[in-house]
Amino acid sequence: VTRQVRVCVVGAGSWGTTVAALAARNVPTVLWARSEDSAREINEQHTNSRYLEDRQLPQDLRATSDLEEALVEADLVVYAVPSHGLRDVVKRSAGHVRPWIPLLSLVKGLEPETLRRPTEVLAEELPGHPTGLLAGPNLAKEIMDGLAAAAVVATPDDVVAQSMQPIFHTRRFRVYRNRDVVGSEMGGVLKNLIAIATGMADGLGTGDNTRAMVIARGLNEMTRLGEAMGADPMTMSGLTGLGDLMATCMSRQSRNRRVGEELGRGSTIEEVLEGMEQVAEGVRTARSVMAIAEAHDVLMPISAEVDAVVNEGRTAREAYRGLLGVQAQHERHPVA
Amino acid sequence: VTRQVRVCVVGAGSWGTTVAALAARNVPTVLWARSEDSAREINEQHTNSRYLEDRQLPQDLRATSDLEEALVEADLVVYAVPSHGLRDVVKRSAGHVRPWIPLLSLVKGLEPETLRRPTEVLAEELPGHPTGLLAGPNLAKEIMDGLAAAAVVATPDDVVAQSMQPIFHTRRFRVYRNRDVVGSEMGGVLKNLIAIATGMADGLGTGDNTRAMVIARGLNEMTRLGEAMGADPMTMSGLTGLGDLMATCMSRQSRNRRVGEELGRGSTIEEVLEGMEQVAEGVRTARSVMAIAEAHDVLMPISAEVDAVVNEGRTAREAYRGLLGVQAQHERHPVA
Repeated sequence: VTRQVRVCVVGAGSWGTTVAALAARNVPTVLWARSEDSAREINEQHTNSRYLEDRQLPQDLRATSDLEEALVEADLVVYAVPSHGLRDVVKRSAGHVRPWIPLLSLVKGLEPETLRRPTEVLAEELPGHPTGLLAGPNLAKEIMDGLAAAAVVATPDDVVAQSMQPIFHTRRFRVYRNRDVVGSEMGGVLKNLIAIATGMADGLGTGDNTRAMVIARGLNEMTRLGEAMGADPMTMSGLTGLGDLMATCMSRQSRNRRVGEELGRGSTIEEVLEGMEQVAEGVRTARSVMAIAEAHDVLMPISAEVDAVVNEGRTAREAYRGLLGVQAQHERHPVA
Repeated sequence: VTRQVRVCVVGAGSWGTTVAALAARNVPTVLWARSEDSAREINEQHTNSRYLEDRQLPQDLRATSDLEEALVEADLVVYAVPSHGLRDVVKRSAGHVRPWIPLLSLVKGLEPETLRRPTEVLAEELPGHPTGLLAGPNLAKEIMDGLAAAAVVATPDDVVAQSMQPIFHTRRFRVYRNRDVVGSEMGGVLKNLIAIATGMADGLGTGDNTRAMVIARGLNEMTRLGEAMGADPMTMSGLTGLGDLMATCMSRQSRNRRVGEELGRGSTIEEVLEGMEQVAEGVRTARSVMAIAEAHDVLMPISAEVDAVVNEGRTAREAYRGLLGVQAQHERHPVA
């Protein structure tokens, strides 16, 4: 890289804003906000109060609601919008993105209906650009508060990844790299169901052994599906798989975990969802994960029980009994 | 196996007694207790109150304090004594153990001084027997209380392992198998230091991202050392590595975790140890793990910081700062 990289982050939600704030410490950074008011607040108050309350953003982080203006000088575009809105924003940005430059996804989850991974959507709509993602156990507010965290830049070209590390790296935010895009991207999808399952175990009051078993066997089935999709099995055990799973299982802020706990205590899925503003990711994606597992002929007993609970009215207690009935084989055997 | 296997468990501590209770549901089982009083209590009251309070043992679990009597009819011997006393008990049993029969270790930790793994001690003192271990996220009292758990029988011969699964398997205790003895055995040793490290992070109040990072990067360095010792890298991500680590990190009963938390809150190691009846495993083995890592030329930054805190007077805060200074590389790179 001959001159300093200029970054554009597309999407000013809590995670997009946080990543833009990290990048702005290292390189010139523009944040595209859908709302003009948000852009103005970021420029004038240096806050994004809708998502991050009164947390201070760097003075030199610039925001705009004009997508062309945001993209026109960017050497690296980072997409940070919800998975269901990604394709549309990428299409709209197509005319403005400079040729050849890498595109990075911060998007959580698969595109509904198509089940495409976010980097696949990027590659379909903007072919010819290197694509990758930044992911890991990253609760945005903790990062804004200066608590230590680590993430992974995953992109097939390790040289590109190496040049991206210093763009996001700060003293408190460690950026590793990995060439395994499929594994890194799927970790964040698959962990949601396992987080619901550990929440269910907690709600049922099954103890520390059971919770540890669900996590270890959950990671096992995440890994088996990842492998079937072409991922490196070790990726699931890293920051984007296990790490993300841990942050989700342990965080009091996690919707997935909370859904699981309430199901475990005996609530129906309807009762649980009634009390929530936003549907937990794992509830929305259970069906998609099952469809992918089936397409790859991979048995995922824990995810399947979670799917049955959130989509077919099975109770958490029945799911738990169902799991105990699965025969224990070799640790790495396809049947859990 | 042509007739029913008869099991002898050598050692009536909480874990040995629990495993004997599991086996006794499936096959004739004898438990050797060092103390005659314990043996009598187990036979007459069907309790082992010193370790398991008033929890009921199976009526047909037989106990004896006579080692010869315990061993003479056994087709499978399970050693469940502390690592520092293992070699002596194995030597004493040598004249009574039937030829060829498999020996299984429940022993936690390495032999002090020699740094031998328990299965190595078995093989040295009783050559010619197949050796293996049973391990996993198994808090004994939870298993006695009927809460679900899973463990792994690790032994190089998968046919032997398959014939052992039904000996210990119950409706609530799932027994997987694995051929990787080194990896399965080292998981239980290496997790102690990572559990102290996550406790330190908790005590320092560093948040969910940091805790998830310590677990994922801790598993990474456990895996790298395992690999250098000849283990399958995936074993560390299974029940005997990550699973055991999870049970230790999350359990309120865990001494390792408690030591870490108090260190994180600013206590010195001397102050922490003063308040404990029994030294936490991770404190005792930090030096041994560092010696093995050095012998295999593997860098383990998290374990090294824990070692410095428990053995060299470094504060938890300094350790945490030290870790943030380590350069982030490729996720699987030998330098964390």
